[in-house]
Amino acid sequence: TLSFCMTLDEDMNYDCLLLQNLHKWVAVESDSVQPQTRQEVIRMIDIAAENLQALGADVTLDNASFQQLFDGQHIPLPPVILAKLGKDPLKPTVCFYGHVDVMPAKREDGWKTDPYTLTEIDGNLYGRGTTDNKGPILAWIHAVTAFKDLPVNIKFIIEGMEEAGSIGLEEIIERENERFFSDVDYIVISDNLWLTTKKPALTYGTRGNACFSVEVEGGEKDLHSGGVGGIVHEPMSDLIALLDSLVNASGHILIPGIYDDVAPLTEEEKKLYDTIEFDLQEHKVNIGVKNFIYNTKEDILLHTWRFPSLSIHGIEGAFYEPGIKTVIPSRVIGKFSIRQVPHMNLSTVERQVKEYLEDVFSKRNSTNKLRVSMKMGAMPWLANINEPQYKAAKKAIQRVFKKDPDMIRDGSTIPIAQILQDKTKKSVMMFPIGAADDGEHSQKEKISRFKSFTTCLQMNLISQLKSDDAMGRSSQK
Amino acid sequence: TLSFCMTLDEDMNYDCLLLQNLHKWVAVESDSVQPQTRQEVIRMIDIAAENLQALGADVTLDNASFQQLFDGQHIPLPPVILAKLGKDPLKPTVCFYGHVDVMPAKREDGWKTDPYTLTEIDGNLYGRGTTDNKGPILAWIHAVTAFKDLPVNIKFIIEGMEEAGSIGLEEIIERENERFFSDVDYIVISDNLWLTTKKPALTYGTRGNACFSVEVEGGEKDLHSGGVGGIVHEPMSDLIALLDSLVNASGHILIPGIYDDVAPLTEEEKKLYDTIEFDLQEHKVNIGVKNFIYNTKEDILLHTWRFPSLSIHGIEGAFYEPGIKTVIPSRVIGKFSIRQVPHMNLSTVERQVKEYLEDVFSKRNSTNKLRVSMKMGAMPWLANINEPQYKAAKKAIQRVFKKDPDMIRDGSTIPIAQILQDKTKKSVMMFPIGAADDGEHSQKEKISRFKSFTTCLQMNLISQLKSDDAMGRSSQK
Repeated sequence: TLSFCMTLDEDMNYDCLLLQNLHKWVAVESDSVQPQTRQEVIRMIDIAAENLQALGADVTLDNASFQQLFDGQHIPLPPVILAKLGKDPLKPTVCFYGHVDVMPAKREDGWKTDPYTLTEIDGNLYGRGTTDNKGPILAWIHAVTAFKDLPVNIKFIIEGMEEAGSIGLEEIIERENERFFSDVDYIVISDNLWLTTKKPALTYGTRGNACFSVEVEGGEKDLHSGGVGGIVHEPMSDLIALLDSLVNASGHILIPGIYDDVAPLTEEEKKLYDTIEFDLQEHKVNIGVKNFIYNTKEDILLHTWRFPSLSIHGIEGAFYEPGIKTVIPSRVIGKFSIRQVPHMNLSTVERQVKEYLEDVFSKRNSTNKLRVSMKMGAMPWLANINEPQYKAAKKAIQRVFKKDPDMIRDGSTIPIAQILQDKTKKSVMMFPIGAADDGEHSQKEKISRFKSFTTCLQMNLISQLKSDDAMGRSSQK
Repeated sequence: TLSFCMTLDEDMNYDCLLLQNLHKWVAVESDSVQPQTRQEVIRMIDIAAENLQALGADVTLDNASFQQLFDGQHIPLPPVILAKLGKDPLKPTVCFYGHVDVMPAKREDGWKTDPYTLTEIDGNLYGRGTTDNKGPILAWIHAVTAFKDLPVNIKFIIEGMEEAGSIGLEEIIERENERFFSDVDYIVISDNLWLTTKKPALTYGTRGNACFSVEVEGGEKDLHSGGVGGIVHEPMSDLIALLDSLVNASGHILIPGIYDDVAPLTEEEKKLYDTIEFDLQEHKVNIGVKNFIYNTKEDILLHTWRFPSLSIHGIEGAFYEPGIKTVIPSRVIGKFSIRQVPHMNLSTVERQVKEYLEDVFSKRNSTNKLRVSMKMGAMPWLANINEPQYKAAKKAIQRVFKKDPDMIRDGSTIPIAQILQDKTKKSVMMFPIGAADDGEHSQKEKISRFKSFTTCLQMNLISQLKSDDAMGRSSQK
């Protein structure tokens, strides 16, 4: 069963069962964001666990605790799947991370097909979760089934709360560090996309995210701009001035010292960008803008992956509806975030932001009250691309796709990579198996039936990890 | 029936019927803001019309047309009441304007009493509409009933859409200018409050209001701050910079030329402020702030009434909920308004704002699109306090309250005064009969049973208008 699917052209392993399973998985509305679909997330975890059990895996459902909602209500978290297949000490152990929950999706959001009915159009499989992340997990599971004799020991850690911020997962990873993760050599995450629609990629870094709230509080109640406009320090003008002090028109962050810890760009690193195939025009079309701030491929990629950025998201407590309301809001909260990069330190960033905003505010001589706080902080992640699994993945991609992968980063924050690397100290690799146009989170989420949703590349990686490891491990043990 | 209610102490005219009627009127949820209560507004108009008919008035219900809602739906506008009592050409004709619709009110908004059940506590009558504006209208109606022989001809124009912006009213005033308004001498509006809780006031001016929207549009769709933060001109940073350019920390408007047309303060005008009783500390408590920008009574009143102010109300299209959303909104609309004063011109203000913001925006070299528009423009209003009805009102107040009224303006915009003065060219007076703590639009709206909700002051004004006019009119005719 192994040899005939070692190249994409010959992939005969693609079968009805894989498609049937994806159809079954997509049909489950396992939306983890909205509390009312929580039971469906739990049902989805059960289905995935059954699939793994049918494979002969030793499956544990690690029951996480409860989630407290904004209204104070507690609802159960779905359990986390910990599955094991094989425990031969002479073989390397690969652990796949994935999630079976999805973002909300409703037909009326603008879907052309029913989001929970897998629909094939022109070789693409449309439906919520097809690429993020049900499809990729199923591809790994089916790749494993294809081996009569597994060349590596396999583990799966599958959660159901990723789209809601992986609530409860970090705790489980910590707790399982000495058990489940103790004999793991490689952790593979297939939960992002290639940079383009044609060329596979390996991801070795992501930006972090530090989310801030800036609260300006004036009087006890909202006021009327007619009655008191002109005599009170309005919290909105203070907040607008504070937000305006953060970033200039070309995206340069104005907070003193913020760039101090950004790792210098090395010559070796610069070279990685040369071979990347990236069409600026296509990228503009994909994200729906007419212009970028920069004009070259290098500048665009560096500013997406390699340099920090600051975005202002909105204001809570002010008037936000259509129409007119001549209110002076009494308490407004600005929301902005900084995507940090190595080696920026979260607590340094937090201090720099607070000191700067407090300084800007004090110069206004406003009698309002200011409170700046970092509401969420996720570290950037960076892997060493010289680790064995990156080399193995490169070979697998070369064999199947007849080309080198793009070595990429992700401008977004994928905390799981950093958390797994930080807690387990194992080699973590992000191995995307979806193309740039897969539209994760969008109303046209899909996965390509022939480029991505196969088991060929997955089987090649598994075999390659064994071959590359064999030498290392036999000499070590 | 007349003499015994000529002073407040002797007011015996206050009777069960007046209180019963207010109870009945307050019980009608004639909220004109929310479409679902429109039938109650129409029912309220019918009740008011019946009250006037019972008085012997000749009542016409002027059917306005339809209101188009945001969703495109059309719902009927309540009719406008035009009522007449007496047409003796030897008597002056006084027309009272009022409205019987109210702002929304729900018990759960924080009301201590049911907003639609008139409740007396310590001499105050609580309930939605008690002071704004059902109570004052009923006081006028009952004052009229108290005269056996009316000293003046009386007219009423009563609408049901004031809280929603008096939709359809201007059209009716224009149409009725040559008919209903042709023989009117004085127009009296009792739809605002005294400056203090103790001393009656006459209002001779209001600020205008020019409401602007500043729209900045980037790409076709909202973007993710991870994926593209750092490479696109973010509409939010542009908008924040534009809004920040409008006003400084002490409320000074930064738009060039905006103060050019502000009428100079005369010595005579300054004197009016000397006698005004106004406690800054009490005002702070009333509006719930700890500090003002200015420290003297004169500065506070001048900046509330006499100088323009600019307030930023909020942003449409950005993230406004609690929590975190790392979105780059594609299209954001800032809302701000300028309270203009005489002799600022609306179209000049509009031009100044547009030119200035376009200039600020062009300096940013942003590739986003800017659209500035004035969504609503209401003129300031200013009356001549030497007109006969102001003199008559002063005498009536002196007689009933044993003191001179505060001669005040209102920082808010009450478009009806300007519209009535502009369209009919008649003398318009704002004659508040509610105290500063009446809490119009708030969760503790009330009217004082003894200071305000009487017919004494109203009867005195009616008599005085006749006495003062008798001389003028007999010599003219």
